[in-house]
Amino acid sequence: MAIHQETITLSPKSKGFHLITSEIEKSLLSMPSIEAGLLHLFIKHTSASLSINENADPSVREDMENFFTDIVDKKPYYIHTYEGSDDMPAHIKASILGSSLSIPITNGRMNLGTWQGIYLGEHRDYGGSRRIVVTLYS
Amino acid sequence: MAIHQETITLSPKSKGFHLITSEIEKSLLSMPSIEAGLLHLFIKHTSASLSINENADPSVREDMENFFTDIVDKKPYYIHTYEGSDDMPAHIKASILGSSLSIPITNGRMNLGTWQGIYLGEHRDYGGSRRIVVTLYS
Amino acid sequence: MAIHQETITLSPKSKGFHLITSEIEKSLLSMPSIEAGLLHLFIKHTSASLSINENADPSVREDMENFFTDIVDKKPYYIHTYEGSDDMPAHIKASILGSSLSIPITNGRMNLGTWQGIYLGEHRDYGGSRRIVVTLYS
Repeated sequence: MAIHQETITLSPKSKGFHLITSEIEKSLLSMPSIEAGLLHLFIKHTSASLSINENADPSVREDMENFFTDIVDKKPYYIHTYEGSDDMPAHIKASILGSSLSIPITNGRMNLGTWQGIYLGEHRDYGGSRRIVVTLYS
Repeated sequence: MAIHQETITLSPKSKGFHLITSEIEKSLLSMPSIEAGLLHLFIKHTSASLSINENADPSVREDMENFFTDIVDKKPYYIHTYEGSDDMPAHIKASILGSSLSIPITNGRMNLGTWQGIYLGEHRDYGGSRRIVVTLYS
Repeated sequence: MAIHQETITLSPKSKGFHLITSEIEKSLLSMPSIEAGLLHLFIKHTSASLSINENADPSVREDMENFFTDIVDKKPYYIHTYEGSDDMPAHIKASILGSSLSIPITNGRMNLGTWQGIYLGEHRDYGGSRRIVVTLYS
């Protein structure tokens, strides 16, 4: 049983949902290989999120972005607005979608379903680079 | 310290929320007993979810289903529609509710509150059987 | 590698979102110190939630509360109403926001981003004290 931990930095991404499965897989290459266990991802920001969804059709990411914009943006009652109109909605989206993921590792690989991929939700207009703490349990 | 892992398959369920606490407890019977630790459940699908909620009154599950239908279904802007009108809403519900749960194990049992149960959210009209990776940490 | 577990009780809080980072830090003082690992928090209730968000401006918590009230409360179709009109919305908010958090421990401390804090979402009018199972993995 062992724990391995490192922090990775994702390149800045546009507002919306982005598949980052391959970036996470790449980060695992520099960590000790484990046979079975758990991968924990934690994003150190309050206006970006981690979630799991469909990894094939980009229109899913587009629909996700339009849905969360529709439901969360531009509420007349928001008072936390001094950082711009995209800021408070970004905090709410991050809370709804979540800041962390736990994914089983089986036979040395992430045990995702066929259609599952890891999404970064970038909820700011200009969020910049995002840091993720990667923890491996075996 | 040890990790035990297996994959279970749930029987097909109708669209809506279903209590699966006893199905999960049954799967634990075939795994080594642990005294204290963590149970991790991961559903390998992008149109079904795992969450925790009230385990007694079925009307909670009915209200949950009606709420998520009300908020997420039938948006005129969805473009990921070729698998049917229930598909894109299912992806969004899965992202809002989540694909995994972590539950503490204490004195050899899931340490749930009195009123807590494990919900499978089946978000497709005909989702079929669903696979869950069960990982036990002790 | 070791697991440490204890249950803490939070004092009753008013309906809304509350920063509990320092209460969680205080509970860690009575547990063995770990260098690197994971902190798992699990709330044993179905009408309160745990989430991570902005730790500085109280207006974020106020906007969060107003948003979730706006989106979830007072649906005419709710049938689970015998415990009061705040009950079913509380269950839904708990499912959307989540019952548990996993936070990396690095160099002996919670590895949160600069602006991240731990929120208790109290979703009942009079929720009373809330119990959280704290599990440390190292």
